[in-house]
Amino acid sequence: EDVARPVGVCTMMRLPYQETAEGLDAAFIGVPLDTGTSNRPGARFGPRHIRAESSMVRRYNITTRAAPYNSLMVADIGDVHVNLYNLEDSCRRIREAYQKIMAAGCIPLTLGGDHTITYPILQAVAEKHGAVGLIHVDAHTDTGEQALGEKIYHGTPFRRCVEEGLLDCKRVVQIGIRGSSYSPEPYKFCRDQGFRVVLAEDCWYKSLDPLMAEVRQQMGNKPVYLSFDIDGIDPSFAPGTGTPEVGGLTTHQALEIIRGSRGLHLVGCDLVEVAPMYDLSGNTALTAANLLFEMLCVLPGVQSY
Amino acid sequence: EDVARPVGVCTMMRLPYQETAEGLDAAFIGVPLDTGTSNRPGARFGPRHIRAESSMVRRYNITTRAAPYNSLMVADIGDVHVNLYNLEDSCRRIREAYQKIMAAGCIPLTLGGDHTITYPILQAVAEKHGAVGLIHVDAHTDTGEQALGEKIYHGTPFRRCVEEGLLDCKRVVQIGIRGSSYSPEPYKFCRDQGFRVVLAEDCWYKSLDPLMAEVRQQMGNKPVYLSFDIDGIDPSFAPGTGTPEVGGLTTHQALEIIRGSRGLHLVGCDLVEVAPMYDLSGNTALTAANLLFEMLCVLPGVQSY
Amino acid sequence: EDVARPVGVCTMMRLPYQETAEGLDAAFIGVPLDTGTSNRPGARFGPRHIRAESSMVRRYNITTRAAPYNSLMVADIGDVHVNLYNLEDSCRRIREAYQKIMAAGCIPLTLGGDHTITYPILQAVAEKHGAVGLIHVDAHTDTGEQALGEKIYHGTPFRRCVEEGLLDCKRVVQIGIRGSSYSPEPYKFCRDQGFRVVLAEDCWYKSLDPLMAEVRQQMGNKPVYLSFDIDGIDPSFAPGTGTPEVGGLTTHQALEIIRGSRGLHLVGCDLVEVAPMYDLSGNTALTAANLLFEMLCVLPGVQSY
Amino acid sequence: EDVARPVGVCTMMRLPYQETAEGLDAAFIGVPLDTGTSNRPGARFGPRHIRAESSMVRRYNITTRAAPYNSLMVADIGDVHVNLYNLEDSCRRIREAYQKIMAAGCIPLTLGGDHTITYPILQAVAEKHGAVGLIHVDAHTDTGEQALGEKIYHGTPFRRCVEEGLLDCKRVVQIGIRGSSYSPEPYKFCRDQGFRVVLAEDCWYKSLDPLMAEVRQQMGNKPVYLSFDIDGIDPSFAPGTGTPEVGGLTTHQALEIIRGSRGLHLVGCDLVEVAPMYDLSGNTALTAANLLFEMLCVLPGVQSY
Amino acid sequence: EDVARPVGVCTMMRLPYQETAEGLDAAFIGVPLDTGTSNRPGARFGPRHIRAESSMVRRYNITTRAAPYNSLMVADIGDVHVNLYNLEDSCRRIREAYQKIMAAGCIPLTLGGDHTITYPILQAVAEKHGAVGLIHVDAHTDTGEQALGEKIYHGTPFRRCVEEGLLDCKRVVQIGIRGSSYSPEPYKFCRDQGFRVVLAEDCWYKSLDPLMAEVRQQMGNKPVYLSFDIDGIDPSFAPGTGTPEVGGLTTHQALEIIRGSRGLHLVGCDLVEVAPMYDLSGNTALTAANLLFEMLCVLPGVQSY
Amino acid sequence: EDVARPVGVCTMMRLPYQETAEGLDAAFIGVPLDTGTSNRPGARFGPRHIRAESSMVRRYNITTRAAPYNSLMVADIGDVHVNLYNLEDSCRRIREAYQKIMAAGCIPLTLGGDHTITYPILQAVAEKHGAVGLIHVDAHTDTGEQALGEKIYHGTPFRRCVEEGLLDCKRVVQIGIRGSSYSPEPYKFCRDQGFRVVLAEDCWYKSLDPLMAEVRQQMGNKPVYLSFDIDGIDPSFAPGTGTPEVGGLTTHQALEIIRGSRGLHLVGCDLVEVAPMYDLSGNTALTAANLLFEMLCVLPGVQSY
Ligand SMILES: [Mn+2]
Ligand SMILES: [Mn+2]
Ligand SMILES: [Mn+2]
Ligand SMILES: [Mn+2]
Ligand SMILES: [Mn+2]
Ligand SMILES: [Mn+2]
Ligand SMILES: [Mn+2]
Ligand SMILES: [Mn+2]
Ligand SMILES: [Mn+2]
Ligand SMILES: [Mn+2]
Ligand SMILES: [Mn+2]
Ligand SMILES: [Mn+2]
Repeated sequence: EDVARPVGVCTMMRLPYQETAEGLDAAFIGVPLDTGTSNRPGARFGPRHIRAESSMVRRYNITTRAAPYNSLMVADIGDVHVNLYNLEDSCRRIREAYQKIMAAGCIPLTLGGDHTITYPILQAVAEKHGAVGLIHVDAHTDTGEQALGEKIYHGTPFRRCVEEGLLDCKRVVQIGIRGSSYSPEPYKFCRDQGFRVVLAEDCWYKSLDPLMAEVRQQMGNKPVYLSFDIDGIDPSFAPGTGTPEVGGLTTHQALEIIRGSRGLHLVGCDLVEVAPMYDLSGNTALTAANLLFEMLCVLPGVQSY
Repeated sequence: EDVARPVGVCTMMRLPYQETAEGLDAAFIGVPLDTGTSNRPGARFGPRHIRAESSMVRRYNITTRAAPYNSLMVADIGDVHVNLYNLEDSCRRIREAYQKIMAAGCIPLTLGGDHTITYPILQAVAEKHGAVGLIHVDAHTDTGEQALGEKIYHGTPFRRCVEEGLLDCKRVVQIGIRGSSYSPEPYKFCRDQGFRVVLAEDCWYKSLDPLMAEVRQQMGNKPVYLSFDIDGIDPSFAPGTGTPEVGGLTTHQALEIIRGSRGLHLVGCDLVEVAPMYDLSGNTALTAANLLFEMLCVLPGVQSY
Repeated sequence: EDVARPVGVCTMMRLPYQETAEGLDAAFIGVPLDTGTSNRPGARFGPRHIRAESSMVRRYNITTRAAPYNSLMVADIGDVHVNLYNLEDSCRRIREAYQKIMAAGCIPLTLGGDHTITYPILQAVAEKHGAVGLIHVDAHTDTGEQALGEKIYHGTPFRRCVEEGLLDCKRVVQIGIRGSSYSPEPYKFCRDQGFRVVLAEDCWYKSLDPLMAEVRQQMGNKPVYLSFDIDGIDPSFAPGTGTPEVGGLTTHQALEIIRGSRGLHLVGCDLVEVAPMYDLSGNTALTAANLLFEMLCVLPGVQSY
Repeated sequence: EDVARPVGVCTMMRLPYQETAEGLDAAFIGVPLDTGTSNRPGARFGPRHIRAESSMVRRYNITTRAAPYNSLMVADIGDVHVNLYNLEDSCRRIREAYQKIMAAGCIPLTLGGDHTITYPILQAVAEKHGAVGLIHVDAHTDTGEQALGEKIYHGTPFRRCVEEGLLDCKRVVQIGIRGSSYSPEPYKFCRDQGFRVVLAEDCWYKSLDPLMAEVRQQMGNKPVYLSFDIDGIDPSFAPGTGTPEVGGLTTHQALEIIRGSRGLHLVGCDLVEVAPMYDLSGNTALTAANLLFEMLCVLPGVQSY
Repeated sequence: EDVARPVGVCTMMRLPYQETAEGLDAAFIGVPLDTGTSNRPGARFGPRHIRAESSMVRRYNITTRAAPYNSLMVADIGDVHVNLYNLEDSCRRIREAYQKIMAAGCIPLTLGGDHTITYPILQAVAEKHGAVGLIHVDAHTDTGEQALGEKIYHGTPFRRCVEEGLLDCKRVVQIGIRGSSYSPEPYKFCRDQGFRVVLAEDCWYKSLDPLMAEVRQQMGNKPVYLSFDIDGIDPSFAPGTGTPEVGGLTTHQALEIIRGSRGLHLVGCDLVEVAPMYDLSGNTALTAANLLFEMLCVLPGVQSY
Repeated sequence: EDVARPVGVCTMMRLPYQETAEGLDAAFIGVPLDTGTSNRPGARFGPRHIRAESSMVRRYNITTRAAPYNSLMVADIGDVHVNLYNLEDSCRRIREAYQKIMAAGCIPLTLGGDHTITYPILQAVAEKHGAVGLIHVDAHTDTGEQALGEKIYHGTPFRRCVEEGLLDCKRVVQIGIRGSSYSPEPYKFCRDQGFRVVLAEDCWYKSLDPLMAEVRQQMGNKPVYLSFDIDGIDPSFAPGTGTPEVGGLTTHQALEIIRGSRGLHLVGCDLVEVAPMYDLSGNTALTAANLLFEMLCVLPGVQSY
């Protein structure tokens, strides 16, 4: 098929659109919610812009030689019908949508949306797979107890997951952590659970291939979820996000993290916190589209050529 | 005082900052909430940007010859501590903050924030003044019953106000209404209450001075609240807003509406729905700052020179 | 149906997507071509951004009371597969695509794309309907003979149409003409054919309802095509276009032109020359989406309520 | 000559560049100074961006039928070598540059730069022509006494001109005045000198042709200078400026003012205060380029066809 | 205190505002001057935007474990009342303002403004502390003799400081130098004074921790001033500046430089040359806010936890 | 000469403008064509914006100590008169323009334009010098066979060059290759010709000085052409381009590549694919201007000081 890139209604990577996950090995799905954002909103338009920029992404991965569509049935299954005015109800709607995806035996590749959404997603994932390992790329640990009196927003999802037993805490790694904080408490929490916390400054100026070898050891062959907050990457690469922090990872390292997840028993992935209005070139959304393609390329069963 | 415009911490029009409304005739106050927005978010940063651009606004109104600070004690009293993650709790916080302002005998001039906020503001206003008249400038009637199952968002505030008896419905005028809608129902609702609904197309190409003469008749000398949604103005003048509609009012007409409110018993004013990221020049916020200055200039007691 | 506006894969106004025009009364279709542009490119992304912003447009037209989906079967049928590297081949592809639409008895509502595309569209339209009347809104007459040695680009489509007998020249009106030109020749050409040319300055400060009454007379009840170049509107309302000219029409007048076309035998409509990168707020695309909705609302057979 | 618009080193309207005004009837010249700006800087890049956007402007004026290059020798003579760090020295450099232009018998058409520059320009103009009449389009009277202790900045040029006897005060008209001010004093000053001050609100919703008939009477057949501050126009049309004020003139009215100056004894024109970074579409600079072309079209000796 | 980030009048990091430095260990202060800029202006709005973006910065430094407010009394003391129209007078105003700060025994943390301002700041600092050591991060040496005939602009401050004996020249290091220049003279000047000049290319691809160990040796325990021109950092990280140069430092290295200054006898710090209009995401200002927070975290007396 | 940077009509680096290459050692020339672009257009404005931003680039290279104007006669010779509506005809026009430059014995330094233009440029270069060596920096190999049925667009120039024998295939290196592709075929083609293909990931985190030592070996002392697609650089440094790919080279590496080309027999250089509208700060164009200056600094005959 030979179609000019500006042509067509924007599905993810120009994949076919279908309404449910039935019959799919993997599915791209959007969760256009941003009302859990503490600072700059706009991630509600993340899915729309990631889809638009994904028209640049072609079938074959030059570097890894993966050709995912040769091995897997993949489609775009649209967006969860979130409730913009009520975070709790949105969480319910997301959880129910992902329960259906899990029931179909399909691996969800999620286009966020702010990081709040990973909490209900993991509820559905763990319901099927039990407590999962977690590779969490982020500037923030997202393990706060509350903010403004609320327990659900984009600073708390992994605290909630721990409380509900959704995570296999010895198999959790957080990469890219940095910045300022209200207190040291959330970091203490992570360490108390047994998470491995990799500060951004421990990643500077070097390849993360050695780190990922260790992470693969840590994860073993049990189910793993990959949650990628675009703010884990430095704002020079990904300015379009709600709570940027300086001194972050490079996209080169991001590629190494995802490519280094090959061989793991991945049961779901997300790419969250793209707030397009803060990146007028569209390149943050383009980066997100590329990272989602790389996630697809490391799913179990994908062949290289 | 002779200070360069870029100088200083940004209070509204460089007024003194104070924590409460005590001792003030009028106060500028921000409500940085946008989680009631149905489309483009960002109005949470409306107060910040309106304050920043207000550094252009000087003391004396050339056209109307009003010099408000000669007559009134005015200050900036900061922002309501909204809860970004819970609209109902935000409404409570706003209502309580405005109850204190009303108790101080001060007229609030509000920097929004999305239009949801006018509902709790009017709760506090009507608690003091009884059901008020309303001059409502907007592309939308904001009299929906619900959306996504929720009764509180920026499409419903005036329906809620009617239900609670906060409005003197025969003294309500809505100016600038246009665009598309899910159904004709909200318009029928307005007319059923006895609102005067002035469509945008009935305003095109002409002065609104005659309309405002009629509005002054309609309002009489009883308490009136002025609620100005920046999307009442055409997006050519005010692109930075969440739900723009083509074919709107001009800023010239906006000035006529506000200046035409002189002599009324105004008990409060707001300017809502400025979403700065959608106007990179800052001119939407500048327009809002000017309109808020014009509102100040027509408050009871302001002298001309 | 009650879905948040950021939700979903972007079809025009969230209509169903289908691959062909079969069974439709009217269809939205994109032509993402901009290589006929003489100055600023970018209209290739017009269809994508118009679709994205059209998520704001709802079912019911408040002002005209039209509810088009109650009367007509309408869908989004995607984009023509243009050849970005060869204008002649693109013209062939467009013509063939529209021949199929015409064969299906469907009225095309086109999302441009630069104005070059109207030439092959009119070839297909006239093949079915014979020479058509034309309501052409534009800053430019687009009746040049050639540029840079080429006869096909966005400055010549209506010259080519005249040469091929596609237009009923006594039933052609051009509205909004202004600006500078290489020579007076193209204007002379228009008048020599018998076109009515309405300069922008003859439209300033007033309603175009009287003009449209005359235009309805001129068009009679024979087939009419409506071609709307967004640069007919002033750049204050529609900055995102390739060859803007100051002193243009207002969106209010644009609405009057389209609404004034009600009752005509419309056989096709287009909205061209939206170049989104020159309007970072997205409001030019939003304006285009609204104008296309208004075109839909005046198609033969649409009822009001 | 048939050259694509993006082609070429950017002189004004693609005119030939020459180093001096010798042999020219009229010359475009830039004054890239903005250190007299009170609020948003950036007008130093006005000449560069006006030249860039002027590539859209062609030889023939469709509406007025003027073809200026058939009648006049015109070139771009580059920019005055301003001193960005010293306003007084810049004034000297500007004055000396314009003395040479006046000595060459050439009419300068100036691309600003902030309005400070009109003071030294008028020194050179009046040195040749004596006190001149002035058509001054602006949101501001620019007749302040001082600011921050300085007598030279963009708020004072016409006060300085009056003091030095450069203006024939009975032949001064200021059009578009509005906004807020530190005090009523500058307005009183204008009226005390006998200036005609036309407030913006006296221009709303109507043609300025009648006003210009009166202005032509006022100016008679003696030398007149036209100074056009782009902020006289409403920020919806010209967002890219340093001190925008809402409720301004339209570009339609701007065209009427300039076209209405035809027949006057124009001895110089300027277009000032374009700050391109505040208008990312480039349309403010494009508007300026068009207005400068219209000024050229009404210079003494220009024929119509 | 638990307040949403968009809430409140923007002081630096939401600190209390006070009018003078009395009683403070350290104070944030703005100098909104940009008329010493040779290329792109806009740094006059640096303080405003740095304050706005600093709402993201929280109390505790995750990486260094510093909690500065536990150890020091800090406030925002507003802006120096600069004279935008006269650089010499601005220098006087700045010097006098900093003399008062120094008299109060307070360490100033300055939000620039262009680099011109460091000259009068160092006059006041050296008046109290004698000739100081200098850690100067910049793409440029800023040791020019003059430009356009002027000795004071942002290319000359450290030449002036040397001439006046304000610097302990053996304790001066300049880091990040690169780009093009009018001549090799300014570099020769630096070396002739005994400055250590570290070219950017000597910093590429590696940690600056070893360099900073040497710098701490060089500085000893005598007074040191830290002057950080944001253009020392690469424009990919900090696009919003007036004279960007490619191939610069990373923010990671910037953090190492500042964190590596811990233990020095810092008597003042500045962060200059943020021109917000050239970075529409706000991330340059956010970076500046973070760097200023890091400076605060290494002031003498700050404890870690 | 001491001129403020905003002053003057924008030639490249403020060099003199002349119409032909006669008498020059090297010439900057623009090719404002972008109709060979597969995704985002806009490179037609590359030459204009590179010239504008080049006003920042001064005569002397601090790091390499090159002072090119001391050794070479250099000028700006304007733009090729491309045909925007016909790629084949544009190729002919470009080829003929470069034949004249080659005939004058001048080295062309080209400001693109999309990469299509390198094909006709190399036709003219090889006509004079025979098959040349090629240093090709790019994210893409640009060795596709066709797209949309066309053999000429920006994805195929080097395939065409190979077919016509313009390249000495053993002396071709491609640096920075990455991203996704329709198929592995183009990579196979490169390797089949004997090109050295250096993937981006083989460049991460390190100096390219060792690579360039090998490249100098590979090139020997025979003629070499340097073709630099700005998308070879990571989009964090160069967002303003049509087909960005994540994980690219840094500008530091770009400087090493160009500086590492010193001593080679360079017969021409180009810098292509700058699409300014996708980088609102102008920094991509500024980067391009700096890279073109660095190319000039390594031309045969340039002395250091
Ligand atoms: Mn997160
Ligand atoms: Mn995060
Ligand atoms: Mn509203
Ligand atoms: Mn509204
Ligand atoms: Mn057209
Ligand atoms: Mn047109
Ligand atoms: Mn002025
Ligand atoms: Mn003005
Ligand atoms: Mn500096
Ligand atoms: Mn610097
Ligand atoms: Mn290429
Ligand atoms: Mn490429």
